[in-house]
Amino acid sequence: MHDETLLDRIVGIVGPNGVVREADKSAYESDWRGAYNGVARFVVRPANTAEVSQVVTLCSEAGIAIVPQGGNTGLCGGAVPDDSASQIVLSLTRMNRVRAVDPDNDTITVEAGVILKHLQDLAEEAGRFFPLSLGAEGSCTIGGNLATNAGGTAVLRYGNMRELTLGIEAVLPDGTVWHGLRALRKDNTGYDLKQLFIGAEGTLGVITAAVLRMFPRPKSIATAWVALSETSAAIRLIRRIQSLCGDRLTGFELMSAQSVEFVTRHLPGCKNPLEHAAPWYALIELSDTQTEARLGDLLEEGLAGAFDAGDVQDAVVANSETQVEALWALREGISEAQNHEGPSLKHDISIAVSQIPAFIEKADARLNALLPKVRLVTYGHVGDGNLHYNVSKPVDVTAEAFKEHASAITDAIYEVTASFDGSISAEHGIGIAKREAAKRHKDPIELGIMRALKNTLDPKGLMNPGKML
Amino acid sequence: MHDETLLDRIVGIVGPNGVVREADKSAYESDWRGAYNGVARFVVRPANTAEVSQVVTLCSEAGIAIVPQGGNTGLCGGAVPDDSASQIVLSLTRMNRVRAVDPDNDTITVEAGVILKHLQDLAEEAGRFFPLSLGAEGSCTIGGNLATNAGGTAVLRYGNMRELTLGIEAVLPDGTVWHGLRALRKDNTGYDLKQLFIGAEGTLGVITAAVLRMFPRPKSIATAWVALSETSAAIRLIRRIQSLCGDRLTGFELMSAQSVEFVTRHLPGCKNPLEHAAPWYALIELSDTQTEARLGDLLEEGLAGAFDAGDVQDAVVANSETQVEALWALREGISEAQNHEGPSLKHDISIAVSQIPAFIEKADARLNALLPKVRLVTYGHVGDGNLHYNVSKPVDVTAEAFKEHASAITDAIYEVTASFDGSISAEHGIGIAKREAAKRHKDPIELGIMRALKNTLDPKGLMNPGKML
Repeated sequence: MHDETLLDRIVGIVGPNGVVREADKSAYESDWRGAYNGVARFVVRPANTAEVSQVVTLCSEAGIAIVPQGGNTGLCGGAVPDDSASQIVLSLTRMNRVRAVDPDNDTITVEAGVILKHLQDLAEEAGRFFPLSLGAEGSCTIGGNLATNAGGTAVLRYGNMRELTLGIEAVLPDGTVWHGLRALRKDNTGYDLKQLFIGAEGTLGVITAAVLRMFPRPKSIATAWVALSETSAAIRLIRRIQSLCGDRLTGFELMSAQSVEFVTRHLPGCKNPLEHAAPWYALIELSDTQTEARLGDLLEEGLAGAFDAGDVQDAVVANSETQVEALWALREGISEAQNHEGPSLKHDISIAVSQIPAFIEKADARLNALLPKVRLVTYGHVGDGNLHYNVSKPVDVTAEAFKEHASAITDAIYEVTASFDGSISAEHGIGIAKREAAKRHKDPIELGIMRALKNTLDPKGLMNPGKML
Repeated sequence: MHDETLLDRIVGIVGPNGVVREADKSAYESDWRGAYNGVARFVVRPANTAEVSQVVTLCSEAGIAIVPQGGNTGLCGGAVPDDSASQIVLSLTRMNRVRAVDPDNDTITVEAGVILKHLQDLAEEAGRFFPLSLGAEGSCTIGGNLATNAGGTAVLRYGNMRELTLGIEAVLPDGTVWHGLRALRKDNTGYDLKQLFIGAEGTLGVITAAVLRMFPRPKSIATAWVALSETSAAIRLIRRIQSLCGDRLTGFELMSAQSVEFVTRHLPGCKNPLEHAAPWYALIELSDTQTEARLGDLLEEGLAGAFDAGDVQDAVVANSETQVEALWALREGISEAQNHEGPSLKHDISIAVSQIPAFIEKADARLNALLPKVRLVTYGHVGDGNLHYNVSKPVDVTAEAFKEHASAITDAIYEVTASFDGSISAEHGIGIAKREAAKRHKDPIELGIMRALKNTLDPKGLMNPGKML
């Protein structure tokens, strides 16, 4: 179809405001970091599900590929078009209506373009809590969170986006609308189809709305910063605190000394609250729906036990909101601080929690052999078995020389991950960034099933082609 | 293939002990209630995954249909062969090994034939807790729990079987083994294939093992029995208790006066602990990992608030283990007690929790119009929106006359359920029992996707044919 004819027909569906002007297109053609850049034939912004359906139908009939896009904050290039100028970017950002808030069912029904922070606020207004929380929450959309099965810091207690979802509405690759917006906690009347679309990165259809779970609002929080001599102590500490506190444990983050050192060196106002440096640190968060939950006492009881058992070297429990923020700043500043230390390679792996110590030992040894004095910035959501195992160049190695080692370093990390039956993408997805690595490290039988499902649901291969598979 | 040749080849795979003798076959050909009866060509009991794979390969090549079977405790006939004597029952009960217990990862890896009660005990031995709990737990198997996405009384806090599962191993319809036994809490490297097999009732393959989540062991429990004037008070009470207690709320069951009256009339030793009868009762359970959690105080605080708000008429908090058991006996005896009152029709529906009062009002009105003086035994896991909306015959109507109304009654209930976007099978599955009803009440688009997936994964249609789809 000629560009002009196609544009006329698209404008006929979404109106002139539904197509991004040529001059404004570029924001949709690259990811926010500028790591992935493409050229879209058109950028289309439908206002509702019917318009999405009609655009997808048109594209299906004309054989035009579609790249669904939310807040464009992904880290793997999953929402960026290729450079052929043949693909249409379908931005869901205008679809930002709240369809229903149902506190008595503890659910909220929103369209795909609603921004995560806005959803968190809506839940709070309803006296409830929506737990998904991640760095990009001010820009990322629910549609993107669903398409990538987003994780973040509250997974330990509340699960991934998948576990927060009761139903979805999706436009299938032929333009059919599947009305799966059920608000049910139990439904065993067939295959659980929503699970296919969640985490599929738009390769099986376009998620247009979802029914999400809300939770009772936590009313008290306790936060501790803990020095540990070894990673195995962290694992014992998780289990000790969890046995004592159950679901009150909502966060458990692990950080290597190197990670914290980068933060205190580069980010103004950040300092380690403990007198002596330690090889590892943990940030622990408890929360409770009770206002007078004495969480601080409980946390101190758990830490005292761990101290007596030799698992904790030192610890501080925050006693003000300012202190809590200062502790989280140490954790959340790592990624930014690492950028001040020159080129780095970032990874997002997961393994069984029990295997964390063995994994770190083996991976560290492999990398030190590969590139002596490499600086390992290891940290992450250790309660979920999820490590951001990041690598900064040695001080005395040039950026160019480091770059030459890049693929060997990443390959080594993924090989070690595979040796522990782990995942090379815990929460960031595959997109373009990890497509080839996934092909190498994933079970061929599983890849075969995935391809068969893709061919069944999207026989023309028009939904986000080249991503994930 | 001739019977003798086929039997020789099967015995060649599973050995003589792996095939059930003709005289012992009948236990595998009918469900435990005797409601569904078939004739199996052979009943095969493989000892391990390799044997399952070889049997499935053989059947695939010979075009023989397979009916996977666990503890055979299902309520919908999903594990029973048809009466053609052409299908093979594949019983997983010999596959009862525990492959791994990993307390540091809070996971346990078991084969499909492990009995649920045994798994609960293993978790307890490891100092942990496996929350799935249901009436048949002494006989049902993990494979069956997975194939039906089992629910039960702890879903409110811990989710269905689906939410308790991290990875599965399955034999695909062509005999290939898919090794998906990952013990990861986060993995975003492709479609989440395990979700397809969970709840598929064996129509897409045979689940042979699973990695399941364990939880911190509750160390204190508080239980209350509450009289309510109306169902909307129950919904307000759930939210009040949950806002106050968060995840401590692990059970919330609702029962109509009729349900409780049947129990106290027929089951020896069962009596309503409250002086005055009420239209509705709730059974509430809190639990905590803390030994001194003062849960009783917390429960009383919540109930006092509800009393002041006019939502609770009267309540008693159990103060001994014996009392707790007596309260649960009132809830768990309903199904048995109902059998003493002549023929009944049982349903297992779910709707949004907020819609429970409107649903009950509408369904009750429909049934009273359809058959005056019908006795409505309404109860269930109301915190999950799941009601067992059961119907006993009017006292002055004969069993035969009641039977004539059966399909009209069930149709009416399913129609009302559909009008609330609900599910006609919350936790019991489809099997044979609800196949036709599901066909009528399920979205044709969803049925179309289900059939397409079935054809893709099982093109010969040999996996549990005639069930679910």
